[in-house]
Amino acid sequence: MAQTASAAQHDTSPDLKTMANAIRALAMDAVEKANSGHPGMPMGMADVATVLFTKFMKFDHAHPEWPDRDRFILSAGHGSMLQYALLYLLGYEKMTLDQLKNFRQLHSLTAGHPEVMPSAGIEMTTGPLGQGISTAPGFALAERILNARFGDDLVDHWTYVIASDGDLMEGISHEACALAGHLKLSRIIVMYDDNGISIDGPTSLSYSDDVTKRFESYHWDVQSIDGHDFAAIERAIAHAKTTDKPSLIRCKTKIGYGAPTKENSSSSHGSPLGAAELEGAKKNLGWTHGAFEIPEDVLNAWRMAGCRSAGMCEEWTARLHKSTRHDEFLAAMAGDVSKVIAPVVRDVKKQFVADNKAAATRKTSGQVLEKLVPAVKELVGGSADLTGSVLTPAWPRS
Amino acid sequence: MAQTASAAQHDTSPDLKTMANAIRALAMDAVEKANSGHPGMPMGMADVATVLFTKFMKFDHAHPEWPDRDRFILSAGHGSMLQYALLYLLGYEKMTLDQLKNFRQLHSLTAGHPEVMPSAGIEMTTGPLGQGISTAPGFALAERILNARFGDDLVDHWTYVIASDGDLMEGISHEACALAGHLKLSRIIVMYDDNGISIDGPTSLSYSDDVTKRFESYHWDVQSIDGHDFAAIERAIAHAKTTDKPSLIRCKTKIGYGAPTKENSSSSHGSPLGAAELEGAKKNLGWTHGAFEIPEDVLNAWRMAGCRSAGMCEEWTARLHKSTRHDEFLAAMAGDVSKVIAPVVRDVKKQFVADNKAAATRKTSGQVLEKLVPAVKELVGGSADLTGSVLTPAWPRS
Repeated sequence: MAQTASAAQHDTSPDLKTMANAIRALAMDAVEKANSGHPGMPMGMADVATVLFTKFMKFDHAHPEWPDRDRFILSAGHGSMLQYALLYLLGYEKMTLDQLKNFRQLHSLTAGHPEVMPSAGIEMTTGPLGQGISTAPGFALAERILNARFGDDLVDHWTYVIASDGDLMEGISHEACALAGHLKLSRIIVMYDDNGISIDGPTSLSYSDDVTKRFESYHWDVQSIDGHDFAAIERAIAHAKTTDKPSLIRCKTKIGYGAPTKENSSSSHGSPLGAAELEGAKKNLGWTHGAFEIPEDVLNAWRMAGCRSAGMCEEWTARLHKSTRHDEFLAAMAGDVSKVIAPVVRDVKKQFVADNKAAATRKTSGQVLEKLVPAVKELVGGSADLTGSVLTPAWPRS
Repeated sequence: MAQTASAAQHDTSPDLKTMANAIRALAMDAVEKANSGHPGMPMGMADVATVLFTKFMKFDHAHPEWPDRDRFILSAGHGSMLQYALLYLLGYEKMTLDQLKNFRQLHSLTAGHPEVMPSAGIEMTTGPLGQGISTAPGFALAERILNARFGDDLVDHWTYVIASDGDLMEGISHEACALAGHLKLSRIIVMYDDNGISIDGPTSLSYSDDVTKRFESYHWDVQSIDGHDFAAIERAIAHAKTTDKPSLIRCKTKIGYGAPTKENSSSSHGSPLGAAELEGAKKNLGWTHGAFEIPEDVLNAWRMAGCRSAGMCEEWTARLHKSTRHDEFLAAMAGDVSKVIAPVVRDVKKQFVADNKAAATRKTSGQVLEKLVPAVKELVGGSADLTGSVLTPAWPRS
């Protein structure tokens, strides 16, 4: 909606840059207090994350486990303070300010690298490089399989990833991203933090890949943008949602954005900035607030973003209650297939006993699977190009 | 050299196709006799291998461990009969016809997948997909490090690889091939058996990578050829030797080349052809000889190829004997660094005892390495972008 000039003049809500600076400030403060952690990535990717969570992500902080929420995977798990800051600002109940103050402390929810807890908004344990980006195709495949079973009314969401150069260097990223391209998993959107900095210095020390060409070779849609240009970020994500391919958005960012001497340097990657550098960064960012202090208008703006899809969540819940598939959907989500499996396994066992023949394990495995697959719709499987040897064909059938 | 029409008319030496058919026949016969193995790949890649070993590979069957030989790695190790047939035909003493007849039998040298034995011409254990192609950058890096130390007179060779789609699917191929491109290891030439067939059927079932684009993204030189066109194979390898990048040659081949019903089909991949199909294949190929029978003129042509670089081996040996680096070179090849290491370790230990201070293991490790690296030229190492944490900088320094 276009604002009138008059409305714009009187709009005192904080702009996106200020909202992003709240992430930066919390990340710097938490790492400084813990005297351990990675401030550089959250500072570099704060602008991208702000656009993603205020304009695209479908979720409701009050219902973090809403099944049809969009998924967010922080593959660059070392930048965990980006995610914790977001979850606090968005109003996730479990992610309190005290949790942020206890960053990297025993028994806190704010581990050095994210640990899965959907009820707190953390979809995936990440940290080992490559793990997050390689799990995304699994999330996206699950979404499409469920969509095929239950339709757009109940299953219609996206998987967003923030990944780093280290994720893309890992071999597993090749296997998973090539498969995502092969399967045309267009609901994956990866924001690649293309900051050109690794731990030892510039990435050019050890890494020359033409990432655009590489992902095009996997049949992904690839864009390159300035990761500090809010309009460009918004355009790129909007475009990514229109293609029929998985998307990679190369976000050129400055690691440690705002730090007076450590911006664009590996020195902001994996250590606290130090008191003087932190003070200088806040000054550069125009952030005049104390440690862990978020002014009310900024917090309000974030909290509004935290429930921007609440209406969609309500409508979805109404659709579910009216659906004839209500019970089946909830059972599938619960993942309890014991009742379905038990009679099948009993029948197969009876048959084996009746046959009373010696057989190779792979053969009996295949016989059991033949019976289980039609009965258990949640079963997804296959063999890695060894169907004839392991007797485990791929399913569900496309 | 252009042959005169008259010479060509009177040249009765077998042509390349006949020499390649000798590989095909031995591969079919050995797999049939073992009733186990992979005939399809050797039949498909026989033409490429024939050009490589008769026109390019630098080696001497009588001196299989000549240090400056070219290296050949069969990354597609399931096609092991290709390599065993070659080694027998070329005259490697250990690889007798009896070994071929004992393919896949206990205590034979002809294991289902190649097992390293340089004295028999096998440079590398392969079979697990991705292993061979990912070891090639190590071979090529070692060659360049030794070349930098000892010069062209003593170290000047190439690393050739035959790889399959399965090798390129593996994640490790991404890590190793990206590194090869980054380090500009131009002495790697990979022949990719681009036959479009995997175990379960066409590769398109599970694999859509644009391999050319992918390897160009790693800054490799990439060519595509008909893998049954001898002139094209020769031109491609010759070109690959002129570029300053690692090379991938996509060889479009027909798996099971010559088999009447199983050519271009996954059915020729991993099982014996069967008597009727084998007979039909030999007929199609114009191969009129019995099982394991190689006519004298064909064997002679191969044996000539087996010592085509013998003169270069002699000249190299003469250069080594005249070299002032003779002893140092042989010591480096022997890989025995105990004498060099012992005094360094003793001195460092003394220092630690004298200092009598508690220190982190990574710190003392770094201190030991600081002393060892200048003393032991054979040491190659580094950290995976964690120099500051593990105190293990990369060496040798470029």
